[in-house]
Formats: sequence, C-alpha cells, structure tokens
Amino acid sequence: MSKWRRRRGAPSLDDVAGNGLINRRALLGGGIAIAGAAGAVGAVTGAGAEPVTDPPWSLAFGQIVPPVQTPSPYEKDVVRSLSNPKGEFRNSHARTPHQLINGTVTPNSLHFSINHCGVPNIDPAQHKLVIHGRVRQPLEFTLDTLSRYPLVTRMAFVECAGNSAGMFAKEPLQTPAGLLHGLVSNAEWTGVPLSVLLDEAGIDPTAKWLVAEGADGQMLDRSVPVKKAYDDALVAIYQNGEHLMPGNGYPMRLLLPGYQGNMNVKYLHRIKVIDQPAYSYFETKNYSQILPGGKTWRFHFVMEVKSFITHPSFGTSLKDPGLYAISGVAYSGTGRISKVMVSADGGKSWGEAALQGPIHEKAFTRFVMPWRWDGQPAVLQSRAYDDGGNVQPLRAEFVAMRGEAANPVTTPLAFPNQHYNSVTSWGVDSKGEVKHVYA
Amino acid sequence: MSKWRRRRGAPSLDDVAGNGLINRRALLGGGIAIAGAAGAVGAVTGAGAEPVTDPPWSLAFGQIVPPVQTPSPYEKDVVRSLSNPKGEFRNSHARTPHQLINGTVTPNSLHFSINHCGVPNIDPAQHKLVIHGRVRQPLEFTLDTLSRYPLVTRMAFVECAGNSAGMFAKEPLQTPAGLLHGLVSNAEWTGVPLSVLLDEAGIDPTAKWLVAEGADGQMLDRSVPVKKAYDDALVAIYQNGEHLMPGNGYPMRLLLPGYQGNMNVKYLHRIKVIDQPAYSYFETKNYSQILPGGKTWRFHFVMEVKSFITHPSFGTSLKDPGLYAISGVAYSGTGRISKVMVSADGGKSWGEAALQGPIHEKAFTRFVMPWRWDGQPAVLQSRAYDDGGNVQPLRAEFVAMRGEAANPVTTPLAFPNQHYNSVTSWGVDSKGEVKHVYA
Repeated sequence: MSKWRRRRGAPSLDDVAGNGLINRRALLGGGIAIAGAAGAVGAVTGAGAEPVTDPPWSLAFGQIVPPVQTPSPYEKDVVRSLSNPKGEFRNSHARTPHQLINGTVTPNSLHFSINHCGVPNIDPAQHKLVIHGRVRQPLEFTLDTLSRYPLVTRMAFVECAGNSAGMFAKEPLQTPAGLLHGLVSNAEWTGVPLSVLLDEAGIDPTAKWLVAEGADGQMLDRSVPVKKAYDDALVAIYQNGEHLMPGNGYPMRLLLPGYQGNMNVKYLHRIKVIDQPAYSYFETKNYSQILPGGKTWRFHFVMEVKSFITHPSFGTSLKDPGLYAISGVAYSGTGRISKVMVSADGGKSWGEAALQGPIHEKAFTRFVMPWRWDGQPAVLQSRAYDDGGNVQPLRAEFVAMRGEAANPVTTPLAFPNQHYNSVTSWGVDSKGEVKHVYA
Repeated sequence: MSKWRRRRGAPSLDDVAGNGLINRRALLGGGIAIAGAAGAVGAVTGAGAEPVTDPPWSLAFGQIVPPVQTPSPYEKDVVRSLSNPKGEFRNSHARTPHQLINGTVTPNSLHFSINHCGVPNIDPAQHKLVIHGRVRQPLEFTLDTLSRYPLVTRMAFVECAGNSAGMFAKEPLQTPAGLLHGLVSNAEWTGVPLSVLLDEAGIDPTAKWLVAEGADGQMLDRSVPVKKAYDDALVAIYQNGEHLMPGNGYPMRLLLPGYQGNMNVKYLHRIKVIDQPAYSYFETKNYSQILPGGKTWRFHFVMEVKSFITHPSFGTSLKDPGLYAISGVAYSGTGRISKVMVSADGGKSWGEAALQGPIHEKAFTRFVMPWRWDGQPAVLQSRAYDDGGNVQPLRAEFVAMRGEAANPVTTPLAFPNQHYNSVTSWGVDSKGEVKHVYA
C-alpha cells in the first residue's frame, strides 16, 4: 500500500453525525471509495487493462455541429413540470426539475416560470418602460436605451411566494423535489440598477413607494418600497448571459433580489412613483396570506432562509449500501448562507455540509455532504443558516406558527399556502427507495 | 432641483482618462443621464403622463408555457458562428457570439465547441471511463457511479489554444468580437475532483503524467501532468446545472481550469497513468506552436491573461454622442483578474474599470467602464491584469515576441496561430461606426 500514492493530509472518513454522515473534508479526496469498494461497478480485470471494444460513436463521424446547442436526446426527460400544458385560460406553472440538475445555475431552458395569462411574444422594438408619477422628468426606456447604461451582473434566486405550498398538506406529498420545490430557480442577471433610472428621473422626497406593472395580459402590478429600489433592485435584461427568456420577462423585468417572485415584475413597462402602496389585486388578494387566526399579513416581501436536498430525493433508488453524497441548494432572501447542517437520522444529530463557494448574497449555495449508507432506514434533512442569524425552521416549529391544510394545492386561497420554508425530510427505506416523510 | 431626490454620496461624472472615460463609481448611480439627456429616447410628455396605448400582447392571452424554454423569436440571430455548417469531413468550430451576450455565464446553447470529427451521440448507459496504467487497481466509472461522489461546483472558462488566431493577421480582420474571440466561453461546471478518482485507483509514485483520451471519432488524447490532476482537475458531468452539452463532452469531460481547451478532453473514456508524456499527435503536431525562429514550444498549457471589449465592438453603430458603457470580459488561466484598465484614446491614457464580483479564479470577470462619447474618433482598448502579476500585452509587444502572418486563418499550421492574448482595439469613427483596428 505504501508504494501507492495517497495524498498527504488526506482526511479520514470519520463520521461526524449519526447514520453515516462523514466529515465534509472527505470530499477533497483521499479515502473515498465508490467505484472499487461498493461493487456498483467492477474493478477492471488485470492491471493495465485497456478498454477492449470501441463503441459505435468512436468509429464514425458524428453529427453536424448546430448553431444553437441543445441537450443530448438521452436527457429528453429533463424538463419543467407543467400545471397547464394545453394553455387553458388560467395560470401556468412550469417547475424546475431540481432532482435532475446540479450546481447552482439553473439553465435558462429550465428556469421556473408562472404566467397568469400565457407567455407574451413581445417585440422589443415596440416595448417601452415608462417611469412617471412623482418625478421631476418622466422618462421612457427601450431595450436599446437600457443597453447603453453601465450594467451590473449578479447571481440571484427568484422564488414564488407559493413555492413548496404542497408542504402545508397534512400528509407528505409523494412527488419529486422539483414538483415540491420547483418554483425557485437561480440565475446570473445583468441589468441597470433601478436607482440609476430613478435618479435620472429625479424622484420627489415624498415618494416612498413605486408601483411596477408588467405588459403581458395580466398586467400584474405590485408596490415596492423606494428603499428596496435604492438597495439592490435591477431592471434586468440578460439572464445567464443571454436576453431574458420569454417566460421570465423578455425583454425586461424588475429584479428585487430576495423578494417574492411576483414582485420581480416581468415584461416591465411602467414604474409609477407614489407616496403610498397601491394595494393592488396582486398584493391584497392573490398574493396575500391568510394566517391561522384568520388575519393576513399586510405585506410579506422577503423569502426566508431555506434549503432542500436534491440528491438523493424522492424517486431515487439507492442501489447498494456504501458511499453517497447528499447534496442540495440553500438560499436566503436576507443575505448569504452561513452554513448548512445535514442529518441522516431525522434530526437527532447533525453534521456541517461543505458549501461550494464563492457564496453569493440572495442566491443559491450548493451544499454537499459525504454519506455512508449502511442499508438501514434513514431520514435525510438539511437545515440552512444565513449570515443575518436566521435559521430554517423544523417542520414542527413551522406548523405551530403557520398551520397546515388538508389540501393546500387544490384550494390555495382558503388555506395557508405561501412562504413555506421548513426543513424537508426524505426517508430512505431498507431497499434504498426514497420517499417524502414528515419527521 | 433640491426638491428632487439625489442619492447622498453619489459620485460625480469626472473623467478619469482621455476621450471621455468616466470614474467607474458612476455606475453605482447618480449623475448618469442617458434616456433624458441623450435624446436617444424622448422624455414623456407631461408630468405624470400614463402610457396611452396598450400593445397587442397586453390585450390577449399569450402562448402556451413550454416544458423547455427557448429564447424569443426576436433573438433568432443570437447563434454561434459555424465553420462547417454542412458537417463536412473536417473540423467544426462553433463560436460564441460575445457581441450579443453579456454577464459572465455563457448559456449552454451558445458555449463554443470544436469537434474534429462531428458531435457523437453517446449513450451514457454504455459509456465508461477507465483509469488504468500505473495504478494499484484499475477502475471503471459510469455517469451513474460518478454521480454518487461528492461533487465540486466551480466557474471556469475554457479557451481553445487557437482562439483569436485571426489577430495574427497583418491587417485587422473586420469581424465581430464573436468571430475573432468566440473560441472561449465560461460556465459553471460540476464534477468529481480527478484527485479523488486517482486516489481510489492508487497511483504509483513513479507516475508523473496521465494520458486522457476521448471516445468520439477523433479519440483525441493529451498528456496531463499528475500535478495538475491533483491541483484542480475535475471530471465534469454538469455544465450550468444540466448535464453536458453533446458538443461539450456529454456525458463527461476532463476540466483543467486555465489549460488550453483541447486538453479538457471531451467524451472522456480513458485515463492512463504513465511516467512520461505520450507525445500524441494532438500535442506534437496539431496543437504545437511554431515560433518565429522555427522552433516550437514543447508544451504550452496555460491560457494567458486576456480581455476583450464586447460592447461596443465591431459592427456596432453608436447612434448619438453621449453616455455609453464600455464592457467586456477578462480572464486568466493563472488565477484571478486583479484589474482591467480601459483606454478610449488608443492607449495614451487608461482608466480602471469596475469589475463585477465575486471574482472567480480562472473564470470570466465582466468589466464595465462608463464613457462619454463626444462624437469624435476614438480607439477603445482593454488590458487585463491578474493576481499573479501577469499583464495582457499590447499588440506591438505581442507581435515582437510571437510574429504575425499574412493569413493565419487559411494556413494555420505554417504560421503562429495559438495563444494569442494581446489587447484588441476597436476604432470608433465620427459616424459612430466601430471597426477593428491595430493601435
């Protein structure tokens, strides 16, 4: 053995918590053995063996290189889940399949979208953004004009207030991570700081609110505090390098990092500067939240600290006992993720996961935790902490605060259905099947 | 004026270098005026004016939300440039249209690719990676096995050694930024550290090199120092969150951050651990570089510090004098970008651009510089510096070292055509037309 290289200082595979959670430093190498040890794949016979047969794609000229690349045909099932695939006259949700992707960037093709009125096909040459109301000089902007400004680039998640609403159900829904939590995605956005445009228009000191309105058929409008506009709001025109997807606001959208999705008004065509909130339909009915006592919050902007495990998750089948990685995403509308704790025994003990840096503010952070599954039942959980001191609640804590509902999905407005952020639990049975459980 | 809000501490628009370069802090807001002042768009008539007509997309139900989003039909020209659109029996280059995108992430659809033998359609269930040679135990990995390992996520650019080869020409080629510099792209890659797999196989202390080989028709193979494998090499299986694009190595590729593109072997199916370089065709002929004296470098792995301006760039037409932003990408195979200097007077004076953070190692950094164009001819340049003390050379410095060629594009092997990294100059004439110039 000493003849063979082993990195000096390679960490051992010491457990750091119950049910096989391993010191996260193990992911830096040294001592991890999956291919050879687990039998999931066999060791190649004979030292120095060469691959003996060439697959067909090694023996032929391949396909034509296309102007726009698309995924392999073998990835055809990596798609968004649609709530309204025929485009009926109602809301359309398209959810990101988190159980099938990895890293932190959500590819534009798979970024979630909600459209109350279908996806508009907007001609950018005809689209205008007007800033008016309590301003010195009302202004009008096109995609071309905005492109002349110094642009700011940043990572940010966008999450629908109703994401994870299925978790309000009294019994755990047996659906993939992307159906439970797929109304959140993460992208690199590039746009003009809204503060620059407001400064150019010159806003009145009495102005405390903006009303932002979209140009699609629903003309969704939401009130936004001027303070947020001057903090980190962007008028975004690029998403992961290219112009916005039609479902995500092409040609321009408001980006309010950390604020609930619908406030990040898509197809942005109007910002009116006013002295009080507009109390629009979308903030007094559609996106207001009934609490257990019958009252509602007046406003509830910030999406709270949250995480969920994507690998393994519902629908996965662990083949054999042995080493695995537990991995997922964590994010907070308040700031940066400071740590993510992972449990494999339903919360009895916790180990700290490795975070993939650099850690962006109000954006996805990917966490990874090595895990040795011994073939016995296990319950996997993740719990996120942010740098503002906020902690993702356990499910029992959350239900005590916010209540639960028989079926929050089919009767959303009569029940608590928004800002769900508790810990999610995936139960692994002795056959390796992963189910959604409450623990 | 004092009635109207202006942010306290907002920077002034002081010039920091010749020809109108403005203090980069101006992009944080305050004092920038494009919509109102430049006349590119008119101020809205009448204070408090409302947009008076509704466009058609505000008055109708939109299109069906699709399972996989694609860009707006109005963005149909945002595609890669192809060198071999009919898939003839030769190399195929697809170049990223940098002049049409922004931010730092290259969308997967537009990531550059070079395929010497077409794009293979690989069945991931049939594809295997074998690590063999001077190892204790040869091992075999599938996409499924690799997915069980703790994965690492990081940003990295990949650049073809021949990127920007057109810049070796004696006269400046009049082509868009994406045709000149489109053989570099930047993505978030997720994969298994190669060190983990090598440790599991157990490599012999006499092993100093690996030979990595791809499974497509060209079976490209390159020698890689073991030191690099243990530094930051990954076997990447995700690109911007989703599995690799077929043109970028699906289902797995070697990622050697900062090393020339072809060494990041795509369709990776074999790593042989050996005691000396293999001196394969791809490192002794195809990707070796003839120097002015007739000698070649034995190896030249690292892509040097570089930057280029994407906005404005060749083909752009500045409409009117006034405020603009000069923006581009900078990167270094050695480490992090430490600063980017921008000139609007062909290098006579320089101002420091704003960098969009966080700044990743061996990855794109977007730089932005506000600029007031006075309607007179100008020459725009960017020059990148990295944290290893490396500086992007001026063109004259570069040509003195490396030579130039009458036509490096059509006769690439007879002329210097690799590792071009000097400053690029875009000349703006008094009509606002942007051309490629040598300055």
